[in-house]
Amino acid sequence: MIVKVEAVLIADNPATFVTREIDGVELNFGGMEGDRHFGVLAKADSRQPMYKRGTEIMNRRQLSLVSVEELQGIADRLGVQTIRPEWLGANILVSGAPELTKLPMGIRMMLSSGGGLVCEGENVPCAGPGRVIAEHYDDKSLTKQFVIQAQKSRGIVAYVECPGEIKPGDHIEIHL
Amino acid sequence: MIVKVEAVLIADNPATFVTREIDGVELNFGGMEGDRHFGVLAKADSRQPMYKRGTEIMNRRQLSLVSVEELQGIADRLGVQTIRPEWLGANILVSGAPELTKLPMGIRMMLSSGGGLVCEGENVPCAGPGRVIAEHYDDKSLTKQFVIQAQKSRGIVAYVECPGEIKPGDHIEIHL
Repeated sequence: MIVKVEAVLIADNPATFVTREIDGVELNFGGMEGDRHFGVLAKADSRQPMYKRGTEIMNRRQLSLVSVEELQGIADRLGVQTIRPEWLGANILVSGAPELTKLPMGIRMMLSSGGGLVCEGENVPCAGPGRVIAEHYDDKSLTKQFVIQAQKSRGIVAYVECPGEIKPGDHIEIHL
Repeated sequence: MIVKVEAVLIADNPATFVTREIDGVELNFGGMEGDRHFGVLAKADSRQPMYKRGTEIMNRRQLSLVSVEELQGIADRLGVQTIRPEWLGANILVSGAPELTKLPMGIRMMLSSGGGLVCEGENVPCAGPGRVIAEHYDDKSLTKQFVIQAQKSRGIVAYVECPGEIKPGDHIEIHL
């Protein structure tokens, strides 16, 4: 399965998880340098309740990937025109992946540059992006609705297995 | 699902992949210090043909786990009395896991100590352990037979997500 990179984005403003588009980036071990989720290690939080909060663990959530098709599906269900990848803090927007969120943990996603990512499965939706969407459309009900309507379509998280460049127009080969 | 640690083993003789039993060990990021597969990073080899040989990648094969039940199944199919975990270069022998090799990639295996491993799926059998078995039983045909008969029962590989001690008698909770 081959998907196309439509946008590369970074969360480099410490005040927010919202990302901004960039021309491309050299992914390194740990993810995207300068991004708030960068690091080979990370501190356990509410996503890893089996570890005491703050414990150092391997960072399996370095990058967030979303698909054009799934974002449009969420927008349709919310009755809004569009959901921008920035609002979800996504790092990579791809097209050609209407079921991106269903990709299983552990599979490889090979970059055009020769680098590779490992899928860590569904990025379960939380209220943060919902609040950004609610603010944008000036409709508070969208916060909770996002969490409900984005289930199983909010994209995946991944980590860098092998460093390499990624930029819009590239393709990613998913090894199922 | 909970399994029991029956033995902890290390491959600390540079001349061979064969392991030897130890009393227990503090697993660190990268696996078991002193073991030939230790390291947060590793060089790509024939197991990762999508990368140029020698490329530095994240080490997803730090530890090898096998189960008492599956080893006995292989022994039965080979018509020999026993297959020792040492001969397969296993690091952790568990009991209570007749289908250990079927565990999917990405799932957590929590140690009694609070540490955690991530399953990286089936450790596909190769000829190396087959040769050790063939030598032990003085029967050359066992090399090839091992590769055939050990399919889907030769155990899994894993990496350390969170450091922690592991020793015989401990339990591992598998988060399916």
